[in-house]
Amino acid sequence: MNDQSIASFLDALASKASTPGGGGAAALMGAQAAALVSMVCNLTLGKPKYAEVEQEMLVLLSAAEALRSQLTDMMQADVEVFNAVMAAYGLPKATDDEKAARSAAIQTALQAATDVPLACAKACAEVLKLSRVAAEKGNLNVISDAGVAVMAAYAALKSAALNVYINANSITERSFAEQRLAALAEVLAGVELEAEDIYQLVKQKL
Amino acid sequence: MNDQSIASFLDALASKASTPGGGGAAALMGAQAAALVSMVCNLTLGKPKYAEVEQEMLVLLSAAEALRSQLTDMMQADVEVFNAVMAAYGLPKATDDEKAARSAAIQTALQAATDVPLACAKACAEVLKLSRVAAEKGNLNVISDAGVAVMAAYAALKSAALNVYINANSITERSFAEQRLAALAEVLAGVELEAEDIYQLVKQKL
Repeated sequence: MNDQSIASFLDALASKASTPGGGGAAALMGAQAAALVSMVCNLTLGKPKYAEVEQEMLVLLSAAEALRSQLTDMMQADVEVFNAVMAAYGLPKATDDEKAARSAAIQTALQAATDVPLACAKACAEVLKLSRVAAEKGNLNVISDAGVAVMAAYAALKSAALNVYINANSITERSFAEQRLAALAEVLAGVELEAEDIYQLVKQKL
Repeated sequence: MNDQSIASFLDALASKASTPGGGGAAALMGAQAAALVSMVCNLTLGKPKYAEVEQEMLVLLSAAEALRSQLTDMMQADVEVFNAVMAAYGLPKATDDEKAARSAAIQTALQAATDVPLACAKACAEVLKLSRVAAEKGNLNVISDAGVAVMAAYAALKSAALNVYINANSITERSFAEQRLAALAEVLAGVELEAEDIYQLVKQKL
């Protein structure tokens, strides 16, 4: 999927095909956010003016690149879990045994389809935190890129959340669903104010 | 640029190269938002249950596709105006005549570098409006995609705004800069509340 051109990804996103959809777009926005944090690091490292934060930028870059890798992988994972849900719905349901097996397969697939966007949301929350360090300590010449990173991470996080909600709603094992919704609520707590705060910090530095 | 793979775009974004940067990422997020509005249209059109909104979805799809095309073009335009600014800074400045010519070239390039993100912000504000129609009238099965569209358009708009601010700050012809900042303020007015309102509308429909 990452080998696909941007133009063909956007065409597929716009088409009536169910995948890629909002889940893939969320993961791509998260990956863009991580890439922009890395860009700020790469344009801060090695500059005498920023020698004091060299070590911190190396750590930040390493964290951002690990998250970027996770988030790009999630674009594909999102397609796979969606297809698994569709495949489960397509199982035969002529006999009671088949019906039971089909229901169980649907529930298993929905659980995976909830866990992927939850993992995406968590990764985006991490990128959001990293964007604060980039905004606070990165090269002033590229500080606007830290501001774009925070907005992209925020949008990706809120987007992934929608995909957790929609799948959790269809899960019959309520303890599983409630646990995942609670984990999501924890990830989302305070994120609006945090994103706005980092954005304003960047804006003031321009 | 749109022929580039997603993986190589993200690598270039993360790298120490100045382009692509936040401006390109903003345009790509805007294009993703427009593509997701189109997706909702394409999965609503032709469904008997949504026959009543068929005509409205056709108009919405056409508007979203026009904006997607504009926004993908802006990814390349952002690179070009940035390169023009850099080229102007690189002009000779040995004599007074050269200095004057260089300053004039820098200012001309900065004006173009302000107008591209302003146009991007305007296009994203349009996509944001379209995402409300998708959220209100689109196929309920893909309503979460309208929610991702609104977040992507919002993040793209706020990101493009940073690139207007940063370039406008360096423009010496203050009437030009003030006019562009006023136009941007108009585009941004009320956008936080509007985005949150559409997002909540989607969340309630899940």
